[in-house]
Amino acid sequence: PAVPRGRGCAGCRDVVPTCERYAVRRLPFARLVERDVAFFERLMPGRVVTGEEEVKPFNVDWLKSVRGCSQLVLKPQTTAEVSQVLRYCYEKNLAVNPQRGNTGLVGGSVPVFDEIILSTALMNQVISFDKVSGILVCQAGCVLERLSEYVEEQGFIMPLDLGAKGSCHIGGNVATNAGGLRLLRYGSLRGTVLGLEVVLADGSALDCLTSLRKDNTGYDLKQLFIGSEGTLGVITAVSILCPQKPKAVNVAFLGCQTFAKVLETFTTCRAMLGEILSAYEFMDEKCMELVERHLKLSSPVADSPFYVLIETSGSNSTHDEEKLNNFLEQAMASGLVTDGTVATDDKKIKASHLRERITEALTREGYVYKYDISLPVGKLYDLVTEMRARLGQSARNVVGYGHLGDGNLHLNITAESYSHSLLDAIEPFVYEWTARCNGSISAEHGLGFKKKQFIEYSKPREAVVLMQQFKAMLDPKGILNPYKTLPSPS
Amino acid sequence: PAVPRGRGCAGCRDVVPTCERYAVRRLPFARLVERDVAFFERLMPGRVVTGEEEVKPFNVDWLKSVRGCSQLVLKPQTTAEVSQVLRYCYEKNLAVNPQRGNTGLVGGSVPVFDEIILSTALMNQVISFDKVSGILVCQAGCVLERLSEYVEEQGFIMPLDLGAKGSCHIGGNVATNAGGLRLLRYGSLRGTVLGLEVVLADGSALDCLTSLRKDNTGYDLKQLFIGSEGTLGVITAVSILCPQKPKAVNVAFLGCQTFAKVLETFTTCRAMLGEILSAYEFMDEKCMELVERHLKLSSPVADSPFYVLIETSGSNSTHDEEKLNNFLEQAMASGLVTDGTVATDDKKIKASHLRERITEALTREGYVYKYDISLPVGKLYDLVTEMRARLGQSARNVVGYGHLGDGNLHLNITAESYSHSLLDAIEPFVYEWTARCNGSISAEHGLGFKKKQFIEYSKPREAVVLMQQFKAMLDPKGILNPYKTLPSPS
Repeated sequence: PAVPRGRGCAGCRDVVPTCERYAVRRLPFARLVERDVAFFERLMPGRVVTGEEEVKPFNVDWLKSVRGCSQLVLKPQTTAEVSQVLRYCYEKNLAVNPQRGNTGLVGGSVPVFDEIILSTALMNQVISFDKVSGILVCQAGCVLERLSEYVEEQGFIMPLDLGAKGSCHIGGNVATNAGGLRLLRYGSLRGTVLGLEVVLADGSALDCLTSLRKDNTGYDLKQLFIGSEGTLGVITAVSILCPQKPKAVNVAFLGCQTFAKVLETFTTCRAMLGEILSAYEFMDEKCMELVERHLKLSSPVADSPFYVLIETSGSNSTHDEEKLNNFLEQAMASGLVTDGTVATDDKKIKASHLRERITEALTREGYVYKYDISLPVGKLYDLVTEMRARLGQSARNVVGYGHLGDGNLHLNITAESYSHSLLDAIEPFVYEWTARCNGSISAEHGLGFKKKQFIEYSKPREAVVLMQQFKAMLDPKGILNPYKTLPSPS
Repeated sequence: PAVPRGRGCAGCRDVVPTCERYAVRRLPFARLVERDVAFFERLMPGRVVTGEEEVKPFNVDWLKSVRGCSQLVLKPQTTAEVSQVLRYCYEKNLAVNPQRGNTGLVGGSVPVFDEIILSTALMNQVISFDKVSGILVCQAGCVLERLSEYVEEQGFIMPLDLGAKGSCHIGGNVATNAGGLRLLRYGSLRGTVLGLEVVLADGSALDCLTSLRKDNTGYDLKQLFIGSEGTLGVITAVSILCPQKPKAVNVAFLGCQTFAKVLETFTTCRAMLGEILSAYEFMDEKCMELVERHLKLSSPVADSPFYVLIETSGSNSTHDEEKLNNFLEQAMASGLVTDGTVATDDKKIKASHLRERITEALTREGYVYKYDISLPVGKLYDLVTEMRARLGQSARNVVGYGHLGDGNLHLNITAESYSHSLLDAIEPFVYEWTARCNGSISAEHGLGFKKKQFIEYSKPREAVVLMQQFKAMLDPKGILNPYKTLPSPS
């Protein structure tokens, strides 16, 4: 007998269910029945969530933009439990939504229909840390900020940092190939992740949890799971290389009069700061206005059309300050920068917060249409300008900010509430524009549910077909995070 | 009618054919017939090599340790030609050995039997170079050293450097995930390669030749081809991110009395040089002896049991020299280092050459048994010591050197000529020892022909099975570089 559905997802009625808003059809997976729940209760007593109110926060994403109707959340503590859950679901043809910190921005982290939510929240143990090599091995549910604190105590840092660090899990970071603020310096997770343990759709565990910087023995299977958004397997443990904690960190906050000057400042700064440059972020004046209005933060420099945040990380504070001061002197003298401040410790925190909290300020403006685009740096801001002109009064705000050093623009458009017609004015225009510049329609956020149908703007059809073959090979029943990442085979 | 075989490989009779030495059985591929050759002659007139003497150098590896018996070398100039060749071979069930610079050390770059050799030697054009981003797009047959010279003229460097740079092709570097001297600083090709164009076994081309630092649109297919040693597809073009050319490069050459001091020197140096450290290489006194004897090079420091080569790359020569001198002062004062020299330009070249030419010096000693192992750094030299004791007088030399900063040991054993009994004394001992330390039996050289049967010392069976599934999916007839990388399905 089916589990009684009661009021379904009535508890989160404020968010329109994804299946309604996007008119998706449920795939023919089995429906959860009482004996399934009983099986899971026996497997992990006390770690099975079924109450409507308790399940609610797992059904809605952080942006409150998508909503599923799952009736069951499972909280395994071990890889063996994940294996048993998946083996059971695979046999019974039950769909599964692996969920980490639920901080994703593309609707990849919550169910679309009634998928069972497999949460890694209780898989939060550090397995080992090597103080000589800086190699951390941990369960996939560890929260990024906790890991940062842990390795910093031992003289290292995590190779990635992002605004959601207080909630996101390392397993989710790896599953989505998260970028963030330190990528410019420490590279992507494809280089820093040394090993993974993954449970496949049928419940079999794949142990590639090595801790070696170099290993050319056969194909690098772990790479396929990095960035696959939970559709090919569930990452249960991660081995990751942590850089040494820099002895000196400096932050400069600058104002520029034009985007061309933002670009020229970048070229100058890259040449003069060289190996100590660890972040080059920009934001436009609209971002600053929203952060000031909603979060009561204030700009450390005079009003400007554009702002730049530069971070340096190095091993010698005297050398680093000298490099930074030389650069600033030249940038001011040549008129690239009209105002600038090098951060003392207090200001440093403030300036970083400004940049990190733009996303939060935007959500206070109503519904947010989020785009995360890779473009040749020279064209990065043109898309914002064109979009602003195109949408006119129909959007409340059109703002641009992002990781300029990586060619990554965050284009955000806000309106009082979600509207089909505004969406139609934005899409597919934004994707066509990006494709014309050979850009990527998702630089770091992934495709999830919201962007999957647009993949061919950035990947040729043959590549998508090959991806579908990999999916069919690794998850023949398609139970892992269905409706995500890849368009349905046509 | 079959092409007359004449004296077969008589021209390279000095090297025992691989199939004889290793008792391999030929798989049931079609044999080359005259109309095949005629087809290729029409497709690429003047670029089809059939004469026995002309084919000979393509059949034998650089170490003269393996030898195939191919009768045909094809030299396409374009991706379309590679496509046509593979489509034909796939239809006819003809096996193909993709060959780059033929500098591999594990027998992966030459045929085992009569595979058609597909050489990328004429695919040597730069397609584009962006002077702002440092992104190079080129055909896969470009020689690494030519590319280095090309980008250096424009203020950048290639992200990898290795001894074979004068011959190796960038496509071969990517296909084998080559490591080399700069990995410590610039990371592996998995991070620096931004895009690939690949022709699959059936001749279809896969265009993933993007030039974006960040792109999270679906699975990262290119990663599967990086390090797959030509068994999954033929890489025809590469997009790669080049770092800015450092303004200052310094080299220090040091002598240490024990391996423990080599390790402690590394920890000290990593802390004091931080972000400017770009290489930390070590070699033992036996290596120095061979380099001195065969290449008439001389050590820049007093005789020591171990030598260390440190390279720094930075943006400010004054700062870099200050860091390096501070480090050296402390290393000498604390007795970690007994003799050391910081290189002037002339000496710099000499010291780097010493390290780069060890491989060459070893080949002058007779047959070389080569092992390329990843280990926890603390145990790196124990394997050399144990092996030396184990082999006693049966080996001429047992030497250790390598990329200590990456945990990568090159263990080399020389003897007058190849001997089964010496090989039996070395293997599987060396692999068992490595597996006990959770090391890798191939850090950067790959598995090729010589190491493929040992893959399970470093990868679990389930991973190998999955690799075989990938191979079967992408190359169902198994025509691409057969007998390599993966053990035959049992």
